[in-house]
Amino acid sequence: MGDSRSASPRELREIIRRGRWTGPTPGLAPGFVQTNLVVLPQAQAYEFLLFCQRNPRPCPLLEVTDPGSPEPRELAPGADLRTDLPKYRIYREGRVDGEVADITAEWRSDLVAFLIGCSFTFERALVEAGIPLRHIEEGKNVAMWATTVECRPAGLFHGPLVVSMRPIPGHLVPRAVTVTARYPMAHGAPIQIGNPDALGIHDLTRPDWGDAVEIKTGETPVFWACGVTPQAVALAAKLPFVITHAPGHMFITDLPDHTLAIL
Amino acid sequence: MGDSRSASPRELREIIRRGRWTGPTPGLAPGFVQTNLVVLPQAQAYEFLLFCQRNPRPCPLLEVTDPGSPEPRELAPGADLRTDLPKYRIYREGRVDGEVADITAEWRSDLVAFLIGCSFTFERALVEAGIPLRHIEEGKNVAMWATTVECRPAGLFHGPLVVSMRPIPGHLVPRAVTVTARYPMAHGAPIQIGNPDALGIHDLTRPDWGDAVEIKTGETPVFWACGVTPQAVALAAKLPFVITHAPGHMFITDLPDHTLAIL
Repeated sequence: MGDSRSASPRELREIIRRGRWTGPTPGLAPGFVQTNLVVLPQAQAYEFLLFCQRNPRPCPLLEVTDPGSPEPRELAPGADLRTDLPKYRIYREGRVDGEVADITAEWRSDLVAFLIGCSFTFERALVEAGIPLRHIEEGKNVAMWATTVECRPAGLFHGPLVVSMRPIPGHLVPRAVTVTARYPMAHGAPIQIGNPDALGIHDLTRPDWGDAVEIKTGETPVFWACGVTPQAVALAAKLPFVITHAPGHMFITDLPDHTLAIL
Repeated sequence: MGDSRSASPRELREIIRRGRWTGPTPGLAPGFVQTNLVVLPQAQAYEFLLFCQRNPRPCPLLEVTDPGSPEPRELAPGADLRTDLPKYRIYREGRVDGEVADITAEWRSDLVAFLIGCSFTFERALVEAGIPLRHIEEGKNVAMWATTVECRPAGLFHGPLVVSMRPIPGHLVPRAVTVTARYPMAHGAPIQIGNPDALGIHDLTRPDWGDAVEIKTGETPVFWACGVTPQAVALAAKLPFVITHAPGHMFITDLPDHTLAIL
């Protein structure tokens, strides 16, 4: 990539579309919203849309495409969701059936794409507010757990709330709450502060997804709803056909982060 | 009603269910969220849900029931949407086909109810913040207009954004913005301040719905997205069958107003 890191979202999507970037997207197009992707047949789209409506903290829905259209008209007019993510995962009957850089061959006239807000937006806001994030400092993936909190079900779709955890210095916890509360479309304020047991999490050294990070003296584990939730729920439903982004390989939109801030 | 004005939401719904209150609901159960109601067959529910997702300011969706279930489990467990509103309007092929106090006879296993946030919530917050509301003082209905701003369409559903207007003393306009911004699930912050022409509104003395109110010297007309929008859009789609609340005859939930405040 080299100096492509400073490229615009549109330029980056073109680079990705031409197959010249197949890596993860954190750090690309800083200041622009990146999203999770879930693609489903229309037959399951109503219940998935309802699931997102009923669970807005883990599933902040930024855009739903018209059936068969791969263009996210609101978030990135002219983009093509079949080619503009660096890597996709294809699932059949609830099992991974490959990772590809292009889903044009898989596209169908009945597919609907769901673009769901992502923690990158609020993490950037936290760092800009002077709140250190250990997993970023250490080049790790954030630590995530499935909790004992059940999402509100909708038809086929049900399952536990998945959370991410970030250790925050105690005196900065209130600021971490107010900063992230500004971004409800990127999971918003924490759902739990300091009490993992309340979520059914009993070992902070062994996350269900991502990498463990140290919690130092004076730091509080803070838990946010996580975009892995809708993916986990979509997979648990064992649908015949689902496509998602590959972990860390998000869709880069034209939407500046600040447009998601409500305050 | 007499002293029933101080009854709990559950008590009021029982009074309404027994047919002992068929009037409008403003002022009842103060401090509890009231909602708009739109009931549609499931065949049209996906596109209507998508319309609400794409137009959250006029259509803040608080709950969608499971097909065939008349119980709003989140907002009022145990309530029955077929009987617990004082008056309903039934539409067939886009035309009013009667107003009734009970829709039990019309209920079907494929019906889905949409409960949509209502301006009563933010009006109470405005009054509590010391901002006078003329239409309330004068016992009128708020003035509403269809604008030249088009909603984002979804399938069958499309049409203009409908707004309500309240004249606000100039020095209180910033406070009116911050107070209502706290309630995105009750239409949130204004969408326009002081320039009706920008919305295609050219005569503030002649609203499309509701009652005109005087705008006094030093007052600014302030425009909020309005819950009439989803109703107007549902009707314009000329669906075979739609039920809504009758104007002003809302559903009274168990949800305290403050639970909708984001700040």
